[in-house]
Amino acid sequence: MAVVGAGPIGLAIAWRCAARGLRVTVHDPAPGSGASAVAAGMLSPVAEAYFGERELTGLLVASAARWPEFAAELGEVTGAALGYRTEGTLMVGLTADDLAEARRLWAYQQELGLPVTPLRPTELRDREPALAPRVRGGALAPTDHQVDPRLLVPALRTAAERAGAVLVPGAVRRLADVDAGVTVVAAGCGAAALTGLPVRPVKGQVLRLRAPGGAAPDFRHVIRGYADGESVYLVPRHGGEVVVGATVEERRDTDVSAGAVLRLLRAAVELVPELAEYDLVETAAGLRPGTPDNAPILGPLPGRPDVLAATGHHRHGIVLTPVTADLIADLVTTGVPDPLLDPFRPERFGRTTEEDPWN
Amino acid sequence: MAVVGAGPIGLAIAWRCAARGLRVTVHDPAPGSGASAVAAGMLSPVAEAYFGERELTGLLVASAARWPEFAAELGEVTGAALGYRTEGTLMVGLTADDLAEARRLWAYQQELGLPVTPLRPTELRDREPALAPRVRGGALAPTDHQVDPRLLVPALRTAAERAGAVLVPGAVRRLADVDAGVTVVAAGCGAAALTGLPVRPVKGQVLRLRAPGGAAPDFRHVIRGYADGESVYLVPRHGGEVVVGATVEERRDTDVSAGAVLRLLRAAVELVPELAEYDLVETAAGLRPGTPDNAPILGPLPGRPDVLAATGHHRHGIVLTPVTADLIADLVTTGVPDPLLDPFRPERFGRTTEEDPWN
Repeated sequence: MAVVGAGPIGLAIAWRCAARGLRVTVHDPAPGSGASAVAAGMLSPVAEAYFGERELTGLLVASAARWPEFAAELGEVTGAALGYRTEGTLMVGLTADDLAEARRLWAYQQELGLPVTPLRPTELRDREPALAPRVRGGALAPTDHQVDPRLLVPALRTAAERAGAVLVPGAVRRLADVDAGVTVVAAGCGAAALTGLPVRPVKGQVLRLRAPGGAAPDFRHVIRGYADGESVYLVPRHGGEVVVGATVEERRDTDVSAGAVLRLLRAAVELVPELAEYDLVETAAGLRPGTPDNAPILGPLPGRPDVLAATGHHRHGIVLTPVTADLIADLVTTGVPDPLLDPFRPERFGRTTEEDPWN
Repeated sequence: MAVVGAGPIGLAIAWRCAARGLRVTVHDPAPGSGASAVAAGMLSPVAEAYFGERELTGLLVASAARWPEFAAELGEVTGAALGYRTEGTLMVGLTADDLAEARRLWAYQQELGLPVTPLRPTELRDREPALAPRVRGGALAPTDHQVDPRLLVPALRTAAERAGAVLVPGAVRRLADVDAGVTVVAAGCGAAALTGLPVRPVKGQVLRLRAPGGAAPDFRHVIRGYADGESVYLVPRHGGEVVVGATVEERRDTDVSAGAVLRLLRAAVELVPELAEYDLVETAAGLRPGTPDNAPILGPLPGRPDVLAATGHHRHGIVLTPVTADLIADLVTTGVPDPLLDPFRPERFGRTTEEDPWN
């Protein structure tokens, strides 16, 4: 079999399939250079449970539940550190308006039965004294964790190669050029050109700060907040890095704009004032593979049982990596799709190009 | 003779001296890599005329007056573009408080007889429609111009070399290692270690934006403003670049901090809102050679007529380049100091180290 795309999704599929004894080649001119290169790595099914996305939320929860074992296994196979951390996520609102908006979402998340614990201001500050005194309130999502995608991708590559997968450098321009019984298209935004599927780039701008003097950041939780109407997340790493993200823009360039950096920094510093003293070490933009319903596209293309899509993961590629890899590997080896895949079948968008695009 | 330091000051001195027939070597491990590499290049004796710095202001005015001819001559000798622009500088205040602070300074500048013309809000907007409607008021300093230091330095190097000066790569650790009858120390912050003079690094953080699609910025004047108490300048270049600066910090690191970027971007976007749409293409920090009285140090070291200082230019290195080069070249060739140099002699700080530091 062949996998097109050596981001986390493609590499994890290759690992899982190779571990089951399949001969796997992975095609990518620049492994790990797509959306994962800038991704923050939040494993946040709860904080990311938005109105009108119940089926996606179900898949996020299922995948997040697989992460502890997935991380343990990957760490064991490769000996690599992944930056996997389980302190949980604090969701906060800066102003009364921000808090009102946040509370609507927490109520919805609780309605779905997800673990969200509203905290009193004193409890919030006890947990995270670095938060600005102005922050009006917050809630804890204890099961929303994080991993470092810049550690994850090389670890997945190592795991896939040790299991026998072969990385082939070079871009795949047409699926007809791939010589394999089954081809998995895990090419992120590149899936559109290969398959005609409605995958579009959604630009995200992200900053990386670093605590002065190489210290660890003064906060341990992932912090997701609303600050004067601006949504921002802050992801602390043991090495001192703090990822600040992210814009969501219907654009296909990867330029960094002054306005986006301003909005992200302003919101970050309003929530955690000490971040003003951190170094700004990186500004970057990446392109997420978005779909019309914000959910991934998983399974055989209509009329092409030999071509499986594993793309369209949008803002959820890292958290969805384990479940995507397991379900696609199951499908490849058994031919039977797991019922979990059902809402994410490519057919839901119909045949999207006039001609047969994959020949 | 030898010049230590191949920034704009050292290169211009070398050019002027070589053009008068002197044999000149210029020593620098990395020409143009100091403060000039991040400098904005404002030629602003008027906007930079601050309370309590009359003698410095006099020198700034004298040097700015030499700039048109200096630029013309340098352009002629080298054929290089310098980004020299004469549209003038707009000084503006965002809020009523900002404007009140600005007006105090404009009154002082007018008292000194400097050309400052207060503008009515409609006049301000006619001149520069890109200014935010919120901007309360402004004044024009028509003789405050600009040059691009990243074009200036290579041009000066070419001019110096064509006149016969020889660049010697490599750092000078001790003046005793320099084999020359006269040595000019134009080493910026490095002058302290070589001479014992009280030159200290003063950190400045600077951003570079770029207009989208390679267009020219939508404003032509240099804009210097106060925005909610923050002082910022915006320098537009024909190629699309806008330099946004600068912090003034008593630090010797060159890290870029989140807080500084936030303050600069916020003030910039408040004054010229369209800058939010510009790309943020560079964040950088440099170290200016500061002195106890903010004025440069020009002339022979006490008891060492063979060692001339030309350093301590702090925030004024680019504008002071022509006058520094001319006066030092005069001094080297005639042995007689111009009276203009008098307030800037090294002696004003006494002998600053316990021992003789230059042996």
